[in-house]
Amino acid sequence: MVTADAAARALELAEAALAGDRRALARLLTAVENRTWVAESALRRLHPAAGRAHLVGITGAPGAGKSTLVAALIGEIRRSGRTVAVIAVDPSSPITGGALLGDRVRMQSYASDDGVFIRSMASRGHAGGLAASSVASATVLDAAGFDLILLETVGTGQSEVEVAAAADTTVVLEAPEMGDEVQAIKAGLLEVADIVVVNKGDRPGAQRTAAELRAMLTVVARPRLSGAVEGGGAVGAPDPDPGRPHPKRPEVLVTTAMSGEGVPELLAAIARHREGLGAAEGGIPVRRARAAALVWALLGDRVRRKLEYPDLAASTAETLDAVARHELDPYAAADRLLSRLQAGR
Amino acid sequence: MVTADAAARALELAEAALAGDRRALARLLTAVENRTWVAESALRRLHPAAGRAHLVGITGAPGAGKSTLVAALIGEIRRSGRTVAVIAVDPSSPITGGALLGDRVRMQSYASDDGVFIRSMASRGHAGGLAASSVASATVLDAAGFDLILLETVGTGQSEVEVAAAADTTVVLEAPEMGDEVQAIKAGLLEVADIVVVNKGDRPGAQRTAAELRAMLTVVARPRLSGAVEGGGAVGAPDPDPGRPHPKRPEVLVTTAMSGEGVPELLAAIARHREGLGAAEGGIPVRRARAAALVWALLGDRVRRKLEYPDLAASTAETLDAVARHELDPYAAADRLLSRLQAGR
Repeated sequence: MVTADAAARALELAEAALAGDRRALARLLTAVENRTWVAESALRRLHPAAGRAHLVGITGAPGAGKSTLVAALIGEIRRSGRTVAVIAVDPSSPITGGALLGDRVRMQSYASDDGVFIRSMASRGHAGGLAASSVASATVLDAAGFDLILLETVGTGQSEVEVAAAADTTVVLEAPEMGDEVQAIKAGLLEVADIVVVNKGDRPGAQRTAAELRAMLTVVARPRLSGAVEGGGAVGAPDPDPGRPHPKRPEVLVTTAMSGEGVPELLAAIARHREGLGAAEGGIPVRRARAAALVWALLGDRVRRKLEYPDLAASTAETLDAVARHELDPYAAADRLLSRLQAGR
Repeated sequence: MVTADAAARALELAEAALAGDRRALARLLTAVENRTWVAESALRRLHPAAGRAHLVGITGAPGAGKSTLVAALIGEIRRSGRTVAVIAVDPSSPITGGALLGDRVRMQSYASDDGVFIRSMASRGHAGGLAASSVASATVLDAAGFDLILLETVGTGQSEVEVAAAADTTVVLEAPEMGDEVQAIKAGLLEVADIVVVNKGDRPGAQRTAAELRAMLTVVARPRLSGAVEGGGAVGAPDPDPGRPHPKRPEVLVTTAMSGEGVPELLAAIARHREGLGAAEGGIPVRRARAAALVWALLGDRVRRKLEYPDLAASTAETLDAVARHELDPYAAADRLLSRLQAGR
């Protein structure tokens, strides 16, 4: 049961986070990752305060230099007087305690800067989907007043790409002269790109890669982003939300994150992209898609909790067991559960 | 609307697939991938006939040699007189038409063998989740009578790993001496492994890598596989199904897929693992988890379709818009939609 005490504690945490208390912020983000009741309660309080930050997804194949670019962007954002939070979705397992410590060490120069907040998040074990967890974490940081929120994820998995695609502006990082398997990944990533960055611009072939990408992007129309919506849809279902339309062909920029070359231009392009979104008819479609994805995920959870509540738990388990024994097909099982949910018994 | 004609056609397709018609099988798998009504109807017919095949997930970092190993396994399975189907989940985009053609070319030697069926599946754009689509495809191939079904996926994304983890037996492939970022991926993959294979056994360091992995696996307990269940759960939710317990410490084998060395031993280990599952108390827990994941995904879809049906569509859209405008928090929105669903208005 939820006690009045727990409710008061969740609100207190939310208020402290709103007031800029970094420890409260960190605790709240942990609650969000662990999907506790505290998180739900606090997020309800924080949601009206959010909606101001610019969410920027940064993704790319391993080795493209995402973390170095994020570090360079942080510096550039701070020089412009704005604040920034980073959610780094870690490709490693929770059991290793999150590897890739090198990246975090690289960012430690910002440890004493109140205008920077860096958080890493495990990529596995998010029941409602990694994108839903990331969006909820971003809401917390948004409400806490950060101007920009960078969502850094590796671009080699569907869930990971969805995180970046859920942002207002999605930056896809490429490195010059990548291998064959990576080329295939690249094509998938380009679909979600609002801005394409060829990093490691000091390497031979960087300008050629950029030119090739520009040529490629003139022929690739942006498809419907059906994969970005989680928690709804299934085999046998119609496509979910069509997602945001591609406002225009992605810009292709060249950066050298290590030296900082091209980074101010990238930040300007990110700002330009957001202005373009605001001007688009009907506001910002990606925000509608993001809200819908989160609500569908939460609804899926509520439906399931209802069906696993004591009065229905036994019949639900029986139905699932019958499917496992191949005595009942999964569609009939879903129909049966839906009827029970609607009948409330 | 679903016509009697369409229903008859779906059943006809299902019957043809059961009878071993490869063109019907291919068409059915396309329907499954596109989540058409034909797929649902046919799968209802096929489900009782499925449940006999051994589903084997094969995953690993890019470059570990998955496709070469799969080709070697196909040869070994055929020599033992059994049939095999492969579902290769492609990391590339649908817009490229599926790259990595090299792998498919490598398997073309089996094009005229009726005991082998190879299918590649795009990894993006599966609304109910990639794992749900793969399990549904496996059900079709299972009902069609294939003895083994290999699910080959790249091990660098949450959704992709879930595909392999949904199998009866999950084989995780490693190559000797991988880089730092790959090491992190490896740790995440090991959690889902029933069998670990160090491939490229002819390279220096293969035996040492195997020894290191054995040492590592004595200390890593297998955690609850919460990420493997899609379609339910969300931020603020309790953990979903705990998934299958780790029956025992994974075996570590060394293969050289190119020459075929170690492949018969791997196939024997795969068979041993299944025997172990059958002996476990309460049957095969992974099959229960797989059935549950599929039903939850289908239920999520049905819930959503109900809420987007004409009589509720306008109020559903209004609720989602209010969340996007930050006038309503997503939890309150989910509660509201659930009430409407239960009230039927």
